[in-house]
Order: sequence, then C-alpha cells, then structure tokens
Amino acid sequence: MAIESIRWMGSTNGYLKAIDQSQLPTRLHYLSLRNWSSVYQAILTLKVRGAPLIGVSAAFGLYLGARTIKTTSTKDFYRRLDKVRDKLLSVRPTAVNLKWALTRIMDLAGNHLHYPPNRLKLLIFREAKRILKEDKQTCFRLGQYGSRLIKNGAGVLTYCNAGALATAGSGTALAAMYQAKKQGKKFRVYVPETRPMLQGARLTAWELSTAKIEATLICDNMIAQVMGEGKIDLVILGADRITARGDVANKIGTYSVAVLAYQHKIPFYVAAPRTTLDLSLKYGPEIPIEYRRGEEVSRIAGRQIAPANIKVYNPAFDVTPARLIRGIITEAGIIKPPYHRNISLITGLM
Amino acid sequence: MAIESIRWMGSTNGYLKAIDQSQLPTRLHYLSLRNWSSVYQAILTLKVRGAPLIGVSAAFGLYLGARTIKTTSTKDFYRRLDKVRDKLLSVRPTAVNLKWALTRIMDLAGNHLHYPPNRLKLLIFREAKRILKEDKQTCFRLGQYGSRLIKNGAGVLTYCNAGALATAGSGTALAAMYQAKKQGKKFRVYVPETRPMLQGARLTAWELSTAKIEATLICDNMIAQVMGEGKIDLVILGADRITARGDVANKIGTYSVAVLAYQHKIPFYVAAPRTTLDLSLKYGPEIPIEYRRGEEVSRIAGRQIAPANIKVYNPAFDVTPARLIRGIITEAGIIKPPYHRNISLITGLM
Repeated sequence: MAIESIRWMGSTNGYLKAIDQSQLPTRLHYLSLRNWSSVYQAILTLKVRGAPLIGVSAAFGLYLGARTIKTTSTKDFYRRLDKVRDKLLSVRPTAVNLKWALTRIMDLAGNHLHYPPNRLKLLIFREAKRILKEDKQTCFRLGQYGSRLIKNGAGVLTYCNAGALATAGSGTALAAMYQAKKQGKKFRVYVPETRPMLQGARLTAWELSTAKIEATLICDNMIAQVMGEGKIDLVILGADRITARGDVANKIGTYSVAVLAYQHKIPFYVAAPRTTLDLSLKYGPEIPIEYRRGEEVSRIAGRQIAPANIKVYNPAFDVTPARLIRGIITEAGIIKPPYHRNISLITGLM
Repeated sequence: MAIESIRWMGSTNGYLKAIDQSQLPTRLHYLSLRNWSSVYQAILTLKVRGAPLIGVSAAFGLYLGARTIKTTSTKDFYRRLDKVRDKLLSVRPTAVNLKWALTRIMDLAGNHLHYPPNRLKLLIFREAKRILKEDKQTCFRLGQYGSRLIKNGAGVLTYCNAGALATAGSGTALAAMYQAKKQGKKFRVYVPETRPMLQGARLTAWELSTAKIEATLICDNMIAQVMGEGKIDLVILGADRITARGDVANKIGTYSVAVLAYQHKIPFYVAAPRTTLDLSLKYGPEIPIEYRRGEEVSRIAGRQIAPANIKVYNPAFDVTPARLIRGIITEAGIIKPPYHRNISLITGLM
C-alpha cells in the first residue's frame, strides 16, 4: 500500500535506487546511487530525507565506499573506510539514525579485523541489507501500535513527512495510518505544508492521496485554527532524535504543534524506531540543530518572495520538551511518561 | 519614513493611485484606479489589501462610482449609488473597515438628499478625502501609543502586514515601530512570512528594510521556536474586525501566535483604529470568515507544490479570543481588559 522509497538493485556490484524526493509531487523520478559521494549528495540536497531513511541510505553509502577501496591490507581498508564514515556522518547533524547506522557497520567491521578486505566488504553489504530489512519490519510493528490510537471517525494531524518516503518501509507516523486504513477505519488526516521545504505538501499529501487516505492540506499557520474548530483528535508525527529524558528533535514547527495540541487538550504522539533514541543525551538542548541557508525561506520555486537583502533565521529542527508528549510509539510498544524511566526500560530490550 | 501606499491624484476628475502590492517586493508598480470596478478588482485580487486601506480605497471607489452616474434625479442617483455600495461591500467579508467607510459615505449622502446629484458627488469626494486624511492621523496617534510598548533592545514579533501598506498612513502595528525608531530606540523585528499570500515576507520585510529597521524573516512554523529561545519580548499585530467583547479577527495564523505568546508569557497586543471595532457583534464566532481558493496554498509562484487533486482548507482569517490579548492599541489610547467595559468606553469617545 505504501510506496517503496528505496531498494538495493542487484547483488554486491549493484546500486541503490531511491526516489528523488525533491521532484515530488509532480514527478516520480528514481536516482541510481552508485558511489558513496552520490549518496552523500542525495542526502545533502534533501533528495533522500527522513531520519530512518537517512540511516538506511548511509549504511549503503558506507558499503559503496567500502566497495571501491582497493587494498589487501585490512588495517588500510578500515582506516579508509573510517574516512568515508566521517564524511557521511557530517552530511546532516540532527537525525541520530545516521550515526547509529554508520556506527553499527563500523563496529561490525571493527570486530572482524581478522577478515581480509573482500570478506569485510561482503559483511558490510549484508549488514546494510539487514538494516534495510529491519527498518521495514520496524515500520510494520510501529504501525501496529500506532494504529490502535486512531479511532474510527477521527481527525488526525501529522507534520512534515514521517511516511514511506522517510523510511525503507511504510513510515513511522504514517505507518499507523496505513494500518488503520487496512483495519477498515475511516479517518481524516490534516497535513500542514511544512515550510520551508514543504515536505507535508509535496510528500505526505502525495503519499496519502496515492494510498487513498483522506487528506486535507493546510498551511502551518492554520494548525491552531483546525484544532480550535475541534477537527483534530490526535497528533502523530516523527522524530529525528529523542533524548534519554524524552525530549524530541524533529522538523521545525513540531514544537509549535506540541504547544498548540497541549493548549487544545489533544494527545500528541511521536512515532519513531528505537534507533532514534540517543541515550548519550539527557536533555533536548544538547541535540545539535542544523541551520540551513536563508534562500530556502526567501526564494520559492526560483522566485524571490522577500527583499533580497533580508536577514533570515532558518533552523531546520526544533526540540519539543517531553512534558508536552503523551507517548512515543516505537516498534516495541508505546513509551509513556515518566520517560526518564520508561525509555531506558524499552531500550534495554533492544 | 513609511511609504505612501495610496494617494488621490488631481481634483474631482482625478484618479486613485495605489501600490500594486501583488508585485512587491520585486517591483514597485503603481495602479491607476479610474472607476469603481477597478477598485473592486484591485481589492479582490489583493493588489490593495489591509483592513484600513481597504476602507479608504472603498470610499474612493464609491466616489468613482458616483462620478459616472448620469442623472439629474437625486433619488435615482442614490439608488444607483447604493448598488455600487453593495458591490464594493461584497468584495471581502471580514474587514469591517470596508463596511464602515461605505456606510459613512452613504449616511452622509442619505442626510443630503435635498442636494442635486452633482453637489452630492462633490460631498462624497470630500468625504473620501477626509477618510484618507483621518486614517493618516489615526496611524500617527496609534503609533505614539504603540511605541511606548517597545523598550530599547527589545525583540518584537509582528505578523502579516499591518504597516504603511495596510493603511493610508504609517500603519497600525508598524506605526509603533516607525515611531520607536524615530525616538532612537534600538530593537529587532521578527517577521513571519504569513502563508499562503506571504504578506510578511513580501510586504512587511520590504517595508521594514526600506525604513532601515532591523528585521529577520522566519517561517510561520518558527514563531514558537524564536519565542522559546527568548528572542521575543512583545507581539504587536493588526486586526480586521474586533467585537464588543474584544475578540479579534485577523490574518490566519494570528490565533496561533496568540496561544504561543500566552504560553511563553509574552505580551500580545493588537493595533487597530477604532473603525475596526464592530459593536454590533459580541463574540468572535459571529464574525464572517472569508475562505479562499485552495490554489492559493497548493500552488506557489505558478508551481504546483502539492498533488493536483488534494483537498485544501484555506480560511483567510481566524479569531483570537479576548482572554489572550494584553491590550488593543488605538488612536485614543490602549484598551485594556475588561474589554466588555473598556471598548464601549473608548467608542463612546468616537
């Protein structure tokens, strides 16, 4: 039902096929990523985006980097692989899944330094495929838990894109909706456009209408209004990083949605795989936030919409404090407050 | 210091010159409006917008309509004038200044039905000019009261455009900033872009940078973030209609700003001439809200940013309940709660 945003084509000498999300919704074009730097570029330019999908893509990016390293020395191989890891790690700072996936592969390689490079390459390839496969399963289980929250006849608000286009599977927040639809529930989704990059309008609206889930597009500044009109019963959206105390970094505007939901007494849920949890951080302000170019705001579709010399403030993410979050939907169940206890319990199961 | 958005050119056979606001910020083009239907079209297509400016323009629109009525019968003249009034009144439903200006002129004409049509035309012309002149004075006085709220070093958030481009004078909310600058105060203004029509990015950012007032453009979904960062000490924005109990209709997104300001304990002020007060309505839900075409949201600069078949909800205004408003800045002083008493007191002075 959900679209497949990423797939590895062929065997070890194959390539990564990914939807070019910058061209949606007007064109469904696939990228063929054949080396680590094209994966890097695709993530940098937001052609491939969404925290879990960035993790999966980076895993294959690291494999593509490994594949081209020509050496018979494992030590030399590992040293050069580590440089590719550093590059990939630097491409976007906020989503922790990127770091998680790269670390998982480097740790695996590090534990097999008695292998020759060619055997390590195969190990890395299989691990990247495993990460992709696990992400699909994670989305499915996450959707099972999340769909329980969607009542028949509900109005649901999401934000940005936490769907199939943000993962290798059916999404995080949207996985709940795909499964609720499968269960025969009727519900309506409100989709804020999510400025400046319009992931809501371009990606979520497209995903939902492709899946024939009833969706209504609004501007971000209309969220309070639709809440005030009683149209929203539930908020579910994604996350880029979650601290040990349950503070959540996600697309800029999420904090605003959380405050507005709180004021309107609407339950606010975050949906994310456990790989989004970063137990090395306690509180939200410790999360590195990416600031992007002012032109993302001051130009739309190539057209200048503000004075050319205007100063622009363009944080790509914000942090929602745990106290505003009713629950965190994961593949292992819904984490409820108190997060400082329950997050460490659920990560203990990983 | 503030730009002049509207001016009557010449005498009774002249025309209304107005900035075509749909072309800003990339082009400063003036419209020459020579008949009532071109005034109607300019307001309909948002080339001329802003509650007080709509009122002033409609007054001249009514004169332009009167000018072309060829009859020697005052009864016939008044009947035909009334039809022009009906048309102009229907162009946009939310801003009450439109109704106020048209009613003021019709009442004046109605009180002089012993005049022949030509003399009535002259009376209407002078009244339209008086409305324009009064609006300038109103902006100035409103700015005097409003500027007292801007402390040296403050961060001020406004919304949409409540500036010179929204009035015949120096604006309502922005009038306070123009005067604070004149008083030598240093302050920084945060300007949300104001989707879907981007009046903040296109108009307010342009006005402020033209006047060399420090301005930073943000997306609407960043307002909570800059508030949370402690960057905002004060919110001042405009209004399209205010009820007897102090509920305020203004550009969609204003209600959201009010809730967020309340949660962050930031004083939230509305600036508007007393002509924006509509004592015939008690509560916000009685205010007629204009809903506009979905394409305003789903297309930007001619480019489709959402699936073509997507449903769009596009209210142009929302209503902020009085309890979230710290004060209403008018030309007669700042109205404080309790509004049900203090609004009727201040309108008694009109």
